[in-house]
Amino acid sequence: MSLDDLDAFTVEVPSWAYGNSGTRFKVFTTPGVPRDPFEKIADAAQVHRHTGLAPRVSLHIPWDMVDDFGRLAAYAKEQGVGIGAVNANLFQDDDYRLGSLAHPHAGVRDKAVEHHLACIDVMRATGSKDLKIWLPDGTNYAGQDSLRARQDRLAESLQRVYAAMDDDQRLLLEYKFFEPYFYSMDIPDWGTSLLHCLALGERAQVVLDTGHHAPGTNIEFIVMQLLRQNRLGAFDFNSRFYADDDLIVGSADPFQLFRIMTEIVAVGAHRPASGVNFMLDQCHNIEDKIPGQIRSVLNVEQALAKALLVDAEALRAAQSSGDVLGAHAVLMDAYETDVRATLADRREARGLPRDPIAAFAASGYAAAVASSRVGGTQAGWGA
Amino acid sequence: MSLDDLDAFTVEVPSWAYGNSGTRFKVFTTPGVPRDPFEKIADAAQVHRHTGLAPRVSLHIPWDMVDDFGRLAAYAKEQGVGIGAVNANLFQDDDYRLGSLAHPHAGVRDKAVEHHLACIDVMRATGSKDLKIWLPDGTNYAGQDSLRARQDRLAESLQRVYAAMDDDQRLLLEYKFFEPYFYSMDIPDWGTSLLHCLALGERAQVVLDTGHHAPGTNIEFIVMQLLRQNRLGAFDFNSRFYADDDLIVGSADPFQLFRIMTEIVAVGAHRPASGVNFMLDQCHNIEDKIPGQIRSVLNVEQALAKALLVDAEALRAAQSSGDVLGAHAVLMDAYETDVRATLADRREARGLPRDPIAAFAASGYAAAVASSRVGGTQAGWGA
Amino acid sequence: MSLDDLDAFTVEVPSWAYGNSGTRFKVFTTPGVPRDPFEKIADAAQVHRHTGLAPRVSLHIPWDMVDDFGRLAAYAKEQGVGIGAVNANLFQDDDYRLGSLAHPHAGVRDKAVEHHLACIDVMRATGSKDLKIWLPDGTNYAGQDSLRARQDRLAESLQRVYAAMDDDQRLLLEYKFFEPYFYSMDIPDWGTSLLHCLALGERAQVVLDTGHHAPGTNIEFIVMQLLRQNRLGAFDFNSRFYADDDLIVGSADPFQLFRIMTEIVAVGAHRPASGVNFMLDQCHNIEDKIPGQIRSVLNVEQALAKALLVDAEALRAAQSSGDVLGAHAVLMDAYETDVRATLADRREARGLPRDPIAAFAASGYAAAVASSRVGGTQAGWGA
Amino acid sequence: MSLDDLDAFTVEVPSWAYGNSGTRFKVFTTPGVPRDPFEKIADAAQVHRHTGLAPRVSLHIPWDMVDDFGRLAAYAKEQGVGIGAVNANLFQDDDYRLGSLAHPHAGVRDKAVEHHLACIDVMRATGSKDLKIWLPDGTNYAGQDSLRARQDRLAESLQRVYAAMDDDQRLLLEYKFFEPYFYSMDIPDWGTSLLHCLALGERAQVVLDTGHHAPGTNIEFIVMQLLRQNRLGAFDFNSRFYADDDLIVGSADPFQLFRIMTEIVAVGAHRPASGVNFMLDQCHNIEDKIPGQIRSVLNVEQALAKALLVDAEALRAAQSSGDVLGAHAVLMDAYETDVRATLADRREARGLPRDPIAAFAASGYAAAVASSRVGGTQAGWGA
Repeated sequence: MSLDDLDAFTVEVPSWAYGNSGTRFKVFTTPGVPRDPFEKIADAAQVHRHTGLAPRVSLHIPWDMVDDFGRLAAYAKEQGVGIGAVNANLFQDDDYRLGSLAHPHAGVRDKAVEHHLACIDVMRATGSKDLKIWLPDGTNYAGQDSLRARQDRLAESLQRVYAAMDDDQRLLLEYKFFEPYFYSMDIPDWGTSLLHCLALGERAQVVLDTGHHAPGTNIEFIVMQLLRQNRLGAFDFNSRFYADDDLIVGSADPFQLFRIMTEIVAVGAHRPASGVNFMLDQCHNIEDKIPGQIRSVLNVEQALAKALLVDAEALRAAQSSGDVLGAHAVLMDAYETDVRATLADRREARGLPRDPIAAFAASGYAAAVASSRVGGTQAGWGA
Repeated sequence: MSLDDLDAFTVEVPSWAYGNSGTRFKVFTTPGVPRDPFEKIADAAQVHRHTGLAPRVSLHIPWDMVDDFGRLAAYAKEQGVGIGAVNANLFQDDDYRLGSLAHPHAGVRDKAVEHHLACIDVMRATGSKDLKIWLPDGTNYAGQDSLRARQDRLAESLQRVYAAMDDDQRLLLEYKFFEPYFYSMDIPDWGTSLLHCLALGERAQVVLDTGHHAPGTNIEFIVMQLLRQNRLGAFDFNSRFYADDDLIVGSADPFQLFRIMTEIVAVGAHRPASGVNFMLDQCHNIEDKIPGQIRSVLNVEQALAKALLVDAEALRAAQSSGDVLGAHAVLMDAYETDVRATLADRREARGLPRDPIAAFAASGYAAAVASSRVGGTQAGWGA
Repeated sequence: MSLDDLDAFTVEVPSWAYGNSGTRFKVFTTPGVPRDPFEKIADAAQVHRHTGLAPRVSLHIPWDMVDDFGRLAAYAKEQGVGIGAVNANLFQDDDYRLGSLAHPHAGVRDKAVEHHLACIDVMRATGSKDLKIWLPDGTNYAGQDSLRARQDRLAESLQRVYAAMDDDQRLLLEYKFFEPYFYSMDIPDWGTSLLHCLALGERAQVVLDTGHHAPGTNIEFIVMQLLRQNRLGAFDFNSRFYADDDLIVGSADPFQLFRIMTEIVAVGAHRPASGVNFMLDQCHNIEDKIPGQIRSVLNVEQALAKALLVDAEALRAAQSSGDVLGAHAVLMDAYETDVRATLADRREARGLPRDPIAAFAASGYAAAVASSRVGGTQAGWGA
Repeated sequence: MSLDDLDAFTVEVPSWAYGNSGTRFKVFTTPGVPRDPFEKIADAAQVHRHTGLAPRVSLHIPWDMVDDFGRLAAYAKEQGVGIGAVNANLFQDDDYRLGSLAHPHAGVRDKAVEHHLACIDVMRATGSKDLKIWLPDGTNYAGQDSLRARQDRLAESLQRVYAAMDDDQRLLLEYKFFEPYFYSMDIPDWGTSLLHCLALGERAQVVLDTGHHAPGTNIEFIVMQLLRQNRLGAFDFNSRFYADDDLIVGSADPFQLFRIMTEIVAVGAHRPASGVNFMLDQCHNIEDKIPGQIRSVLNVEQALAKALLVDAEALRAAQSSGDVLGAHAVLMDAYETDVRATLADRREARGLPRDPIAAFAASGYAAAVASSRVGGTQAGWGA
């Protein structure tokens, strides 16, 4: 593979990464944090401006609700970016205490389905083609509800959502091992997500969030398996040490990120034609948000660059001859390569800063918004 | 549900549980351990004799290879038991260093497929209807082999095995999170096993070994999901605290076993008509083997009995009214019930000992075989 | 041991369990939730009223800050309960973004130490003898701070707090595996907590929160080890399947709770003279809070009752003869015993309701507070 | 720090890495595997010859038992290496079924203590200064034995061993989370190991095996903590994805190995004066053993080199100013540096091959021993 493939590679950034976030214990605030979707998009555009890697911004409804989505899309365009996936929110209404699409009561399920119809309208208004569903439904105590009945209700609700979508729109279905419920989750693993997608139809695909697995799970195996089934729709990239930590992608285990990208590269899924949407889903609880996002997209690009450097022919030769250490060494040689200067050169050649984080710092943007964004309420997970 | 359902419930015991087993560090030996498949069956029959719960014995090929399987089946019948599933062994030949059905070389894959054809012959000779495949294939180092190519090879090998089977035979496909390989396993999770079964056909079903999951996995959810797909073929029961510890089922987390059985009972899958084969797969490394097996089948029966005592109507009522604590309490009330005396009464009524472990101890069997089985080589995982 | 030991056994309940709690995704609200510390104590007193098991309430500062702590203590006494441990809060001030007692800046550490001095004043005003410190300090990214410098700062800060305490006051130091930080925690395990306690002095003891361990950790081993070092100060009881789920104690793994209590009983640490404070630390995110607390203290009592039923002599005999299955069976016989009726009898004999949850439901208290507690702000983790 | 510190850095290799090893399922064999301790030392010397990094070989008793240890030491010297730590074996005797130093019976404990006295004699005969104890004791079932009594017996047994040692000998005490027992281990964590070392005396120190922790454990924190207590005696390096996988160090998570080495470098513990013994403890189940060992010592050196490149001043400045991303970036800059060519240059300057694995392959050693070592029994974990 050639590093030229990097030219067309992009990462989608989430609007919520620019607002405040935190743990159940505390959400820390920072001067200059956006107060509305327009300001979030302005911040997100900074990432693309300095890296050339992040031309799309995911929205989250209702956090990013505006009166005129056409105006929001136009504003994004002015800022040099576009609208990416639209994310439904199924966890912040008091009605969702016992679930949303899988709730025991039909009325709550109806409400959750209606919310998706509204999201589909946002997609039509913004040109977004991906409806992303992370289902936060589950139970906390054994016996609380029927695990099986919840699957049946969920299947029916998803069918209603899918039926309402346009032919050029995809339904991206995420899975998560645990949280916000602790005894059971209704889509806890890739197998369950895939089964629902298979039941829905071809435009339903699985989202793999790198933080949503049990300890020890081989994530690149799942990447391979979903690609093999033609059902890998998107990534939610982030890092974890323990649970769904939502740290900067590549910060906890850069070798794992590299291994994931080698499975992607092995079938050319890094190219836009694959349809795989490489998204971030992170929280910058204590670090600066825009530089945190810049670091993140650079980490993904770096992992991809190393994966592109794998000598595929030498790898195949070692593998087919059963040379365990030799095949491993081919992979490690690519991983150990320092690609930072090469990537800086490529940025420079494209009129981008060699060091995007330094360039952002030098731009004065952070200070400018810290002083201009006074009054109002900072955006966060609740707004 | 009624406890009368217990009458038809059976557990299948594995021939290898009566031989020596251990860890990679040590296999301890015990006087009286069987030296051949006949003696293993004689021991297994002791479990059924004292509990009435274990009328079938799984074989493992080549550990249980004999010249005349008709004679082995006849001997089993004399002892009051029958032959259950036939297990293929894909991990003990030097050729399998890099895998078996997924090995990079066609010659090794052919050999592994041939081994299954031999197992199918054993099934025909013994009347066994279940071919159980635990695939120990995987890799230890990133890059060692192509994860994807291994899936393709595996799919083709499985197809060849499946094609050779008779119409009344099932292929039971097990999955395992890790071990004996540590970077990747070729069937690491239920999703992968199910995909292969779906590709094979209706007589291919998933085996759920309770010790083969990542920490924190909700196993009863998987039981529910596989039942919902009509693809739960069998259990390999055992207990684990950490990895695939293969301890006595119900000894590490009896509440988990109960929760699993409630999913079974919820759809009547404990009844023979369901086709779910409830098998043990355990190692008695340090405890006495026959009493260990007796304890195990009693633990399964006890968990099922408690699951049958769940007040399903009260549970549904509490669930549908969203009464979290009430629904949980209905489940816990069944679990907290002490069914030991009830089960002893039922045994007595059927002419079985109230206390099977005491009855076995009093029988003198252990001392008899310890003194009669002299010379020869004790059976173990290698023979 | 005799069940009569139950008479003197008590569980301390946390004031915050009666306020709203949730995950980072959502805090659900409920009618009737307390709006101030007095109302929390009134709710907590309901638990004691119906169970006779919960005569103390832990406070959390500043969540339970009042102008006149003497009045709060007197109010508690009127309600039939007393003030238990005082909990310091080191996670909800914007200054604590990078830590509190281990923060890189001396000014923040001073502030955190001062907060403890204020807590000690609350102890003096309420008669509380236990200062409980859960240190939420840590880092999210490798390199963010020096792990070692943080230990040194922490040791010095703790020394300052300890030096300010009275001779009849204890410092109870909790540990936690992860959260709210994800790369490192400054007191991640019992070993680190114990080392700090040993450095401080005899009145510093370890708090074991049952939810604060890595997957697979044998918690009863730690209980035994801390008892053996005379440094087990208290429990924070709750249940977990994955992380620090803070579910009802005994709901996820009742056998584990029983095993913990058998280590307690083995050295008589369930008796008040041991000084071990059995506390709850839970969140009732979706279930009713007062019944959730009642269920919790009953679960602890039930586990203790079963542990008291272990035939210690038979256990020792089986253990010393190396009878693996026999010794295990002695333990299981106690665990399998249904003690619910016995415990109901004991409650009745003491003038308490046989079924405390039903009695609370019948009392009308929940409806009364739901209608009387109008206006104001419901208490939660932030107030 | 300067890379010149690499000159004095050494890694100790284990004699058993050159023999056969495997899982409980299978031990694969390879032509040329050593048949006695002399041949193991000859193989180990190959690692040092090509890397200059591995001048010591750990022995394991009784696997490396010889009639004349003076002759073995002399042979090692001829081969250019010396004898390192002596490892006691407490898991391969039938008497150890229920434990060794913590066994319920005094006779078995005596035997285990005697075995250590024999190991101390081997130390005297070979000049070894480190007695390494990995205690494989534990239980498989709750109730099987008293966790507390086992600690007491263990403490007494260790005291007897320690008392028999010379003043210039160290006792290195390892801990392990699980395996070969699954319910409890008698030294499951660093805290327990440290408590025993503190009770013994200053020459008792903790061994940290990188594969012996629960999922998610921050190992570099433990390294820091043990260094802070002056009780880090040695490492057993290897890699793991799941359990104690014993893979090549640095192959599963090279960033973790780097983080561990940064804690080492931060206090100069990579220098010989620190007394920390950097040992390998690995199994090359499927890959070639000598190249596997070469790769391993190179991986450790590479991680140390990167750790030495950390700009300590810049790191401290960013840390003390609370610059989360800046401090993390300082660390990552060192990690991302490709040091392979630099290390090859350094080897060349010292008269060593630039590519040790290629040099070993070109040497013809493997083919030579494969053809010369015919007959006899290959060494393995059992011999």
